[in-house]
Amino acid sequence: MFVHTVFFWLKHPENRDDHSALRAGLESIRGVNEITTVYIGTPAETRRPVIDHSYDFALTLVFVDKAAHDAYQVHPIHQEFVAECAHLWERVQIYDAVS
Amino acid sequence: MFVHTVFFWLKHPENRDDHSALRAGLESIRGVNEITTVYIGTPAETRRPVIDHSYDFALTLVFVDKAAHDAYQVHPIHQEFVAECAHLWERVQIYDAVS
Repeated sequence: MFVHTVFFWLKHPENRDDHSALRAGLESIRGVNEITTVYIGTPAETRRPVIDHSYDFALTLVFVDKAAHDAYQVHPIHQEFVAECAHLWERVQIYDAVS
Repeated sequence: MFVHTVFFWLKHPENRDDHSALRAGLESIRGVNEITTVYIGTPAETRRPVIDHSYDFALTLVFVDKAAHDAYQVHPIHQEFVAECAHLWERVQIYDAVS
């Protein structure tokens, strides 16, 4: 498996329209057939020093393998998401893990 | 859903025994019934400035809800994992996301 985890920090987290626009963009990613499972979330209420809850959206994508991930990266739906939503975020942090 | 993502940095990442011990500990977590899905991985070969590949192990646990996550936190298997493996890691970084 290949787990692609992305955390997004909005430029204007207080802006509800930006929040909704990024969520809509993230939801569009579900249309990529190469993805096995999609998890879209926002920070839970858990609070401990080792927990980073400062982000606005978490996206966890599970792929069968790296080839499927690579196909996602160049997929038109993903590219449209980046083109339409990249101006909304201040920072993204990605972790890719294989097993 | 509740996605609990943990990244581990070993104190001695060059030590194969430590690596194996942490992997075995992580695998033991699969025995916790409250978890819906377990993903255990190591850094993929992807390299971009926004990708953090400095960690040694990634653990992604999917739960039905926060109650299941909370039950996991106090589950004997999880507590044994922490008791036996905490000395192996230098740092953990956790992200909890709900949807």
